[in-house]
Amino acid sequence: MQAVNNLLERLEARDIRALARAISLVEDSEEGASELLASLSPRLSGSRIIGITGPPGSGKSTLTSKLARDFLDRGEKVGLLLIDPSSPFSGGAILGDRIRMQELSGRDGIYIRSLGSRGSVGGLSQATARVLRLLEHFGFSVIIIETVGTGQAETDVVETVDSVVVVAVPGLGDDIQAMKAGIMEIADVFVVNKADKDGADRTLRQIEAALQMQEGQGMHKVPVLATVASSGQGVTELVAALDAHYKYLADSGELQRRRERRLRKELIGYVTSVLMSDFFARSQADVDAKLADIIQGRTDVYTVGRFLSRKYINERVERDAKQD
Amino acid sequence: MQAVNNLLERLEARDIRALARAISLVEDSEEGASELLASLSPRLSGSRIIGITGPPGSGKSTLTSKLARDFLDRGEKVGLLLIDPSSPFSGGAILGDRIRMQELSGRDGIYIRSLGSRGSVGGLSQATARVLRLLEHFGFSVIIIETVGTGQAETDVVETVDSVVVVAVPGLGDDIQAMKAGIMEIADVFVVNKADKDGADRTLRQIEAALQMQEGQGMHKVPVLATVASSGQGVTELVAALDAHYKYLADSGELQRRRERRLRKELIGYVTSVLMSDFFARSQADVDAKLADIIQGRTDVYTVGRFLSRKYINERVERDAKQD
Repeated sequence: MQAVNNLLERLEARDIRALARAISLVEDSEEGASELLASLSPRLSGSRIIGITGPPGSGKSTLTSKLARDFLDRGEKVGLLLIDPSSPFSGGAILGDRIRMQELSGRDGIYIRSLGSRGSVGGLSQATARVLRLLEHFGFSVIIIETVGTGQAETDVVETVDSVVVVAVPGLGDDIQAMKAGIMEIADVFVVNKADKDGADRTLRQIEAALQMQEGQGMHKVPVLATVASSGQGVTELVAALDAHYKYLADSGELQRRRERRLRKELIGYVTSVLMSDFFARSQADVDAKLADIIQGRTDVYTVGRFLSRKYINERVERDAKQD
Repeated sequence: MQAVNNLLERLEARDIRALARAISLVEDSEEGASELLASLSPRLSGSRIIGITGPPGSGKSTLTSKLARDFLDRGEKVGLLLIDPSSPFSGGAILGDRIRMQELSGRDGIYIRSLGSRGSVGGLSQATARVLRLLEHFGFSVIIIETVGTGQAETDVVETVDSVVVVAVPGLGDDIQAMKAGIMEIADVFVVNKADKDGADRTLRQIEAALQMQEGQGMHKVPVLATVASSGQGVTELVAALDAHYKYLADSGELQRRRERRLRKELIGYVTSVLMSDFFARSQADVDAKLADIIQGRTDVYTVGRFLSRKYINERVERDAKQD
């Protein structure tokens, strides 16, 4: 508790090393995390949260870096969170991304952190929500979350941000079909990066055509921008598109809805981890013994799961009944 | 219960329409799912489970289709599960994949099903585990799970299969760096598909070099194969590599370890969903009221989360103490 109080004081004083320490605490320790997070003053967030996603090789780290630079240039405080779902296996961050971010490392007003899933109870989306809470509390005006790929982690991250930028590259060809089914629907702003390569115009047109098919719900029209992140071309336009989207969110009430969704998800995730910790504290020996039975074919996961969860729940239910 | 009994009988009789019905039940209904799954006979699985993953555009659906055909040709019963993490947004499956699978649809001994996450409590990995249990019980000798991308869904799926095939394409270039950090470490067999394109040899060499760096743990040496799925080239070699890997798993005891890990994960996932259903049945009104307070900045997620979970847990703990 003393350690947490000390950390809270230093966070209030905007000590960047305290932020790094707090993020590590939130990542590593269930107990310390909730202690710390529950002690933060419950002020409303003034941070804009931007998510950037796209396949490996789309140049999105370079684009993220350039985008952060533009926000810094106009006086924003920028927090950059690099999500690395591969970490359960490697324990490390994606090296290439780090290298591409180096141009930012000397600047004031920016904080860069990468985050892996580490196999924690709530997984990556819960860790992201917690770190986001710390970054918001620390007072960054713009927070950018960069995530790789098209999997569940991305759909989770989408639910934690205000604006989603989807990055594609020229020469998608048939894949536009596959993209349509999923990733296109999460985009608030679409970017075709490496737009100096062959086929960029065709890819732009394909994406625009695909986006038109899903319009008509009276919502925000998704802009499709061409960028060359390595030279910075199109980054100013991307910042303008993000500003326009943020204004749309605020004016339409959608910003509030997205934040409500995020808070609900964060609350449920946290309650789940507390209840499961309690379950395991009471039932670990049962779980191990029954698992041995399952492996030897004497019973199955669902019979055991029903038994153990009912046992946990019924301890209370039975006593409720006796009290009547 | 009557409906479940009827379904069980039809499943035992290997009625394929009953399997389709059972999968829908398991996907759609928490209650019906556990009822059905707990009623299946707890026989040990004789199914080999193969996972295929890779980025969109790597041709992995075509490769999966050809692989399934080869297994069918040698008399295996093949279950094919197409994982579509995009479904929370679209509600639909990836159209292109379905088209590529058409060549299989007329054949006996194969069952093809696609699966999206639908926003269920346990999410995609839990739904996958349940459908897998049905497919194993139905008696498929080979089950192939195909999944897109490099996100959390993929790392989850990895934990449910015996052998992981990672599909790449020529011309990865710098991305080999990014792949190294994550996806390479999950591969049991590596495939460079579209190997008739420029740069295939270079990509093969890069992957082999990257794999060498992570060797030396005395484990299975990951083969790197060249395929042209559209013409079927290299598919026979892929089947042989998968047979060799399966033999390694069985001989080394790793098969047993992987299955234990899967069963533990499945059990915990199931218990989590039961406990959270019980929590919500008791606390939904509390959650809604407190969420309104959080949104208005009067309190925060972690203070509320601690309060609600302790309230749920303490109802029992307090009564335990009174009984002493």
